Amino acid sequence: MKPLTINFARMKETIEYSAKVGEIPNNGLCRLALSKEDKAMREQFQEWMIEAGLEVRVDDFGNMYGRRKGQTNLDPLVVGSHLDTQPNGGRFDGVLGVLSALEAIRTLNDYEIETYRSIEIVNFANEEGARFEPPLLGSGGLAGVFSKEYVYNRQDRDRKVFKNELAEIGFKSDEKNRLQRAHAFLELHIEQGPILENERITIGAVEGIKGMSWLEVKVTGEGGHAGPTPMPLRKDAMMAATSMIAHIERKCADADGDLTVTVGRLDVKPGAVNCIPEKVVFSVDVRHLDDEIREKFIAEEKAVLHEMAADRKVDLETEMLWEVDTSTFHEDIIFQVSKSAERLGYSNRRLYSGAGHDAKYMNDFTATGMIFLSSVDGKSHVESELTLDDDIYKGANVLLDAMIHLADNKE
Amino acid sequence: MKPLTINFARMKETIEYSAKVGEIPNNGLCRLALSKEDKAMREQFQEWMIEAGLEVRVDDFGNMYGRRKGQTNLDPLVVGSHLDTQPNGGRFDGVLGVLSALEAIRTLNDYEIETYRSIEIVNFANEEGARFEPPLLGSGGLAGVFSKEYVYNRQDRDRKVFKNELAEIGFKSDEKNRLQRAHAFLELHIEQGPILENERITIGAVEGIKGMSWLEVKVTGEGGHAGPTPMPLRKDAMMAATSMIAHIERKCADADGDLTVTVGRLDVKPGAVNCIPEKVVFSVDVRHLDDEIREKFIAEEKAVLHEMAADRKVDLETEMLWEVDTSTFHEDIIFQVSKSAERLGYSNRRLYSGAGHDAKYMNDFTATGMIFLSSVDGKSHVESELTLDDDIYKGANVLLDAMIHLADNKE
Repeated sequence: MKPLTINFARMKETIEYSAKVGEIPNNGLCRLALSKEDKAMREQFQEWMIEAGLEVRVDDFGNMYGRRKGQTNLDPLVVGSHLDTQPNGGRFDGVLGVLSALEAIRTLNDYEIETYRSIEIVNFANEEGARFEPPLLGSGGLAGVFSKEYVYNRQDRDRKVFKNELAEIGFKSDEKNRLQRAHAFLELHIEQGPILENERITIGAVEGIKGMSWLEVKVTGEGGHAGPTPMPLRKDAMMAATSMIAHIERKCADADGDLTVTVGRLDVKPGAVNCIPEKVVFSVDVRHLDDEIREKFIAEEKAVLHEMAADRKVDLETEMLWEVDTSTFHEDIIFQVSKSAERLGYSNRRLYSGAGHDAKYMNDFTATGMIFLSSVDGKSHVESELTLDDDIYKGANVLLDAMIHLADNKE
Repeated sequence: MKPLTINFARMKETIEYSAKVGEIPNNGLCRLALSKEDKAMREQFQEWMIEAGLEVRVDDFGNMYGRRKGQTNLDPLVVGSHLDTQPNGGRFDGVLGVLSALEAIRTLNDYEIETYRSIEIVNFANEEGARFEPPLLGSGGLAGVFSKEYVYNRQDRDRKVFKNELAEIGFKSDEKNRLQRAHAFLELHIEQGPILENERITIGAVEGIKGMSWLEVKVTGEGGHAGPTPMPLRKDAMMAATSMIAHIERKCADADGDLTVTVGRLDVKPGAVNCIPEKVVFSVDVRHLDDEIREKFIAEEKAVLHEMAADRKVDLETEMLWEVDTSTFHEDIIFQVSKSAERLGYSNRRLYSGAGHDAKYMNDFTATGMIFLSSVDGKSHVESELTLDDDIYKGANVLLDAMIHLADNKE
């Protein structure tokens, strides 16, 4: 049987709609978790699910599910991603995974296809972690990685609390609505890196997710007026912090090429031109496929940073905000993604993800896999993030085909 | 004649009152220019001036004057400083200069002393520049350094405009109320540095103010997700900026000991843990007694920064936010400060100021000088800023004595 294909014009309409909800200049999206923009998008998504005949429910983490009944009551196939974005995010990251799942459901409806298992599509809450740290709160809560209390008590920079904000947008519902069991989980996502584009390959069959650590470094020196204090008498938190970051970068360059280090956040106190910084707090994001290499890098750098702090007579505190080991997806799901791409005649390869995804925690919950699509210039988490229409169309077709096969699995 | 002395208990009361208007933890003050706290303090100061029998007026920059009539209509002696503070400021910086001028007036009233010239005490608007950059807007406007239009159009970080905020707090008045002419200007201030304390000297007779430059550096790279982009493909604005700052610090350490460099402000875009920074903007405050050395340092560093930016393939823009040359005060005023200290039996020395003050621009307007008092641990622009009661008392006495002598000058 020839593989089915989705209705791309229809899918494109949903993408364009989503791109307006929280739109910012230069084709960007700012749709922070549990914001009023997130609320508006969730309400529209709920409407679309109802129109597609799905049974909709929301759980206590704000995760949204839409169930399409199968012929049996066996564990369902679950497919989806997230609709929230970074503050200067693009219109594809996460969004494509949810909207391609919706489009696949619509296509199944078009062809009146009954699957053996039920299929549930899902929008996970606060995947990005841009508003409430850490990321993956919805899927992590579902998978039991985070306790309900932990998730509920997360605060944004304005000290607003997750639990209250979730209730405020009307998506705080019942624990009994959580996904109980699943046959498998499949997530389509943009690659957010350059590999597929460089090799001109359409489909990535994701083998797993690289381990990562988020370290927070707090440097406390001594404030003072920028003018009169001679340099040797200063305990300047900014000068200490920047020399530490420069050291981290040099060490990373010396390490093997797979290691990545990013300092994405840096706050200065008091933050005035003519005040010697008293306190600087910065984040360090470290990733590597080999957990031991990542852990060793962090341990060594922490030791060096403490020495540097002692030399400069500033105080240093470090806190591990988040840490996950490398995870490997289920071989059957990886294989099904490659097979569906082959059936459709699309080029494909296996690869690891450098970024975290809801699939990371869903992998603890059920057999999991991902489909990656090419990102132009490897960019994401920026307004200029772009995945071409042709790739979106092909990716959604692979998702549809894999969904049909996985939902028809009788074992 | 034995020198008069002030009523310290009375002066202390005004200091304590001021320390509550915008109080923050750890003895700090946050009384940003034209804020509601600044308004409250201005209203109280106005009341105190009226109670002391002064003729009060406010000019179009929000500078407040109180005039005590002399025997003649010759140009007045002007004495004062500013009541606004840094966001994490202390209770002495600027405040002491205004309140000791008020106390000196009250003492002249106590003894019913008539001076030959009138005396005006003054509170200058937005000295700190913490809310509206650059600093010294009130005194700079008065001295003709800044145009009225320039001052009025300054914006804070929330894009609120100086002109509107000044009207909002009820201190936008008439251009005709500006100080027209002055015989001399004298400002008492804390040293904000360690010299007097280290040498256990009570009074500093300030010879002038070191030149300074405020440079803004904008580094624009390429954003992206922290995970998947390999390090060699990145154009990370944070890594570029921190290596630039580290270079600036090293070069400063190599330069002669009088040079100071401070990076007090650094903003990151987008500022999320897992986003490669696309843009980093930081300030560089450079000071030196020798204008040529300062200018050469900046020119050389700018050239190096451009090379570093080119190596890293990031864009670099620099903008000089503010630049002033070293200025030297009037010999007669410096001499009078030393002489008054001698008359009172207080140890004293001449020194230059590393920080900017209203006296800087008043030096362009009239014969100017300053009195410095010791800062504990050399600290200022922090909550823990401290000047001891004994030093405050002695400083105010020197101010009073110098005021009497300068206001009785017939030439």
